[in-house]
Amino acid sequence: MNKNLYLGIDLGGSEVKIAIVNGSGRIIEKTTFPNSYLSTPQDVVRRIIEKTEQMANLKNVCATGVGVAGDIDQENGIVRFSPNLKGWRNVKFKEMLERHLPKPVKIENDANAAALGALWLDGKGIFRNIVCVTLGTGIGGGLVFDCKIYHGATGTAGEIGHIPIDPYGRRCKCGSRGCVEAYLGANYLSEDAEKNRALMSSPVIQRLLKDGELRITPKIISEAANLGDKEARKIWDMYGERLGIILAGIVNLLNPELIVLAGGVSQAGSLILDPLKKTVEERAFKTPVKNCKIIISKHNKILGMVGAAFLNK
Amino acid sequence: MNKNLYLGIDLGGSEVKIAIVNGSGRIIEKTTFPNSYLSTPQDVVRRIIEKTEQMANLKNVCATGVGVAGDIDQENGIVRFSPNLKGWRNVKFKEMLERHLPKPVKIENDANAAALGALWLDGKGIFRNIVCVTLGTGIGGGLVFDCKIYHGATGTAGEIGHIPIDPYGRRCKCGSRGCVEAYLGANYLSEDAEKNRALMSSPVIQRLLKDGELRITPKIISEAANLGDKEARKIWDMYGERLGIILAGIVNLLNPELIVLAGGVSQAGSLILDPLKKTVEERAFKTPVKNCKIIISKHNKILGMVGAAFLNK
Repeated sequence: MNKNLYLGIDLGGSEVKIAIVNGSGRIIEKTTFPNSYLSTPQDVVRRIIEKTEQMANLKNVCATGVGVAGDIDQENGIVRFSPNLKGWRNVKFKEMLERHLPKPVKIENDANAAALGALWLDGKGIFRNIVCVTLGTGIGGGLVFDCKIYHGATGTAGEIGHIPIDPYGRRCKCGSRGCVEAYLGANYLSEDAEKNRALMSSPVIQRLLKDGELRITPKIISEAANLGDKEARKIWDMYGERLGIILAGIVNLLNPELIVLAGGVSQAGSLILDPLKKTVEERAFKTPVKNCKIIISKHNKILGMVGAAFLNK
Repeated sequence: MNKNLYLGIDLGGSEVKIAIVNGSGRIIEKTTFPNSYLSTPQDVVRRIIEKTEQMANLKNVCATGVGVAGDIDQENGIVRFSPNLKGWRNVKFKEMLERHLPKPVKIENDANAAALGALWLDGKGIFRNIVCVTLGTGIGGGLVFDCKIYHGATGTAGEIGHIPIDPYGRRCKCGSRGCVEAYLGANYLSEDAEKNRALMSSPVIQRLLKDGELRITPKIISEAANLGDKEARKIWDMYGERLGIILAGIVNLLNPELIVLAGGVSQAGSLILDPLKKTVEERAFKTPVKNCKIIISKHNKILGMVGAAFLNK
């Protein structure tokens, strides 16, 4: 029997996604189950076992990888803390899973796993140094250098969202000031939009609100922009410019070959990408910019699973 | 004969420093010769050969490394461009040196070589991931990950000076806006100081100027601060805070174990280091800050030579 498949698990606060992946990153089989903030580690392990036991290809799996949001001790496979899972403190998750799932088991921060997924799926194995930026409630990031996840000293490298865009500006939840997340995180974006009179009085937004929308989410703002609303488009221009300022600094500092934008908000697509690229080109050094591709992931929903599967590749 | 020594060359625009170094980074023998902006590659190679031939330990050298300011193609040993050496464009420097000096020869950007020097001399082999920041006319940087210099896609990684501190602020020579170098580069610092009325009218500065100083250099400002001048101290407080804002972002992004400050301006010592550390502690994430040592190099003048020597270690 040829054990040439990999099991990848994307452990989110509201859903757990599981895939069996082949050596090229193609998903052979997948499954999912709902999760909640209150699930204990034991609950989650039990459900993972139940689900994977039903997978026809499990017998051909040679290793398991899991991506979890939060502070992860990769070396020892411990979830030190997860903001999405209540009470998960120093959970020896690798040890718990190795009793039941194909070994070795590796545990990784979810943004790092996504970066590895982006390396293989979006980068197609052509690139060695990539930066993956996840745009959602938070602004996260993962760094892959020489095809390997870069962890830094304590495993927390990649916090792109907490580079300052305006050092004496707005307070950020992290305790610092002016972090890019405090401007571009989805909730901040919505709050700013709701305070923006010109936007709120625009006919397109008014119409979308009449249709029953309660909150000006990034999705609504991108719908409005795509329907031609100028005020909504201004918001994305500013989003792209601000993210572009941070990425220009990262292009100068890290000289990556590929920057991949992922996460829910990245689905605004060219609304973000156009002003972002313009800003990076204006601001970063010419040679590294010319040699850096910036794209939106075409595999957003599966990056986490495939990246987790490839932790052992 | 046991060839266990390394030749390291720090090729500057005004001076070329040459050392033979043992495996622990100790300088066994050293020499130097003056250089000028107008020297051709042939001139420099000829002088290097003359000088090294006089070194008693050259026969025990197993490899050669050279650090040069500018855009270096490390892979092929080519100096693509150096701002300090007129007309040096696509110079096949490795090839030129390998005819005469102990092989292999490696050519590296000087800030990267200094970072490798800092890894061994200041880091003493205890750390694996370090960031070296050179403070002088420019604000340069070198990244060492997993004990190896990180080059990025085109070899230009490490440009810490061109991360924005104020994205809509002052124009930078690089074409962008608000880069930290445009505030903390030595010439910018002097110009700002000379426009600062409170500083210029302070008795300590007045006295130093009477002693024949023509320009308010960083050295003068640090002398004045050390003599108790409050306005001069304010300048260093601002310098440390601004560099600290950038380094807090780098601590969040790269989670390094060690940050080493080097270069002429770093000799201001605790005048920079105290406000800098305070700012980083206030702004960066707790775990990576707690695990990141920030120091001023104790080996400032030899980092380049020793780092260059260790390119082949």
